[in-house]
Amino acid sequence: MATDVIAERLGRLGLELPRQQAPRHPYLAAVEYGGVLYLSGKTAMLGGSVQFPGQLKTSDDIERGRNAAVLCALQVLAAIEAAVGLQRVARLLRVTGYVASDPVFESQPDVVNAASELFIQVLGDAGNHARSAIGVAALPGGSAVELEATVLLTPEDS
Amino acid sequence: MATDVIAERLGRLGLELPRQQAPRHPYLAAVEYGGVLYLSGKTAMLGGSVQFPGQLKTSDDIERGRNAAVLCALQVLAAIEAAVGLQRVARLLRVTGYVASDPVFESQPDVVNAASELFIQVLGDAGNHARSAIGVAALPGGSAVELEATVLLTPEDS
Amino acid sequence: MATDVIAERLGRLGLELPRQQAPRHPYLAAVEYGGVLYLSGKTAMLGGSVQFPGQLKTSDDIERGRNAAVLCALQVLAAIEAAVGLQRVARLLRVTGYVASDPVFESQPDVVNAASELFIQVLGDAGNHARSAIGVAALPGGSAVELEATVLLTPEDS
Repeated sequence: MATDVIAERLGRLGLELPRQQAPRHPYLAAVEYGGVLYLSGKTAMLGGSVQFPGQLKTSDDIERGRNAAVLCALQVLAAIEAAVGLQRVARLLRVTGYVASDPVFESQPDVVNAASELFIQVLGDAGNHARSAIGVAALPGGSAVELEATVLLTPEDS
Repeated sequence: MATDVIAERLGRLGLELPRQQAPRHPYLAAVEYGGVLYLSGKTAMLGGSVQFPGQLKTSDDIERGRNAAVLCALQVLAAIEAAVGLQRVARLLRVTGYVASDPVFESQPDVVNAASELFIQVLGDAGNHARSAIGVAALPGGSAVELEATVLLTPEDS
Repeated sequence: MATDVIAERLGRLGLELPRQQAPRHPYLAAVEYGGVLYLSGKTAMLGGSVQFPGQLKTSDDIERGRNAAVLCALQVLAAIEAAVGLQRVARLLRVTGYVASDPVFESQPDVVNAASELFIQVLGDAGNHARSAIGVAALPGGSAVELEATVLLTPEDS
């Protein structure tokens, strides 16, 4: 997909990709092999700090969680852009969405949907993916959401 | 593996595949690429509602968890059937089993075993898989178990 | 990578690979397909029992968690050795690190770093990987950490 189409879609949504910082060692932001990009988990970071932090418990928390999920999705897109360029996304294969959840919270899909919707808005059909939504005890830096994505790439010269 | 063999095995176990509903947008039940099927996470749904719900805490909860795990495994099989047909399963590659767990519950493997056993009973050798069992805070709709599976397929014309 | 180089690196770190026990049925320690090895989740087992057990809550628990993560990493390396031989590791593709966490604990990356560092110390560049760190409610046998790894292999005759 052409880079300018993606940039235009992000612009229409009033969004921009966050600046990527290399992970502090000892791991990589992404590893590519055989046309598949394995991305490290991304939390709801912006400007160097976690936004919308903390466990979700009641339905009042869903909107905060969705805001966090959008930031995570932007971090995933920015990581793909930094690693290989978004124009090489042939297909988002799988996204696992971890949501910091009080044991009574059951609406993880509503939260992760915000990320899934953004992927499709930005990447079009290539943004359709298999997905799991999981409620976990806690996430790095107190993030409300973390996304782990696996991406199919087009060959480098296409 | 022939479809009628699988149907017969399910029949002997007194089980049938649940009817698949397409996931409510915005994601897909499964994505296939390069002979690998990436499945979305499946909870213990039957007839439109989650069965055997709630966190596991004591050994008394294991049987309920195992019942939930069997339903999740049937949902995985039904999703494969709907996506490509069970006769195309060459090998279950990996299953991650998430079990809604109180912090004192340590028997996640006993719970996920019920799913692993069913996969082998139904798929034979092709049902052998790598596996992780993880105790999480909560799962969608209050499900006690969620399974994320990755499947190797035979070529379409075989 | 030559087997003796790996053995020497482990020796210099004062470490040795734990003896592998086949998982009690009904799953496999590892499944290989298409040059990729899918490993089952590994907990902080040594000598048949879980070491450094229990949820992490405060910064005082980080060191215990790191000790558990090192054991998990050794278990992953031992499982690769048992399945195909460590000399066939071309690249660690992805590691998901699950850390048993009280909801207030936010330092999962510091814990999983101990595993990531060991992979690089032992495997060199081939040990660099994409990674997620997730805080979960509980893990099998009370383990503080569980690692799920995916490994790219060199062809068998190389």
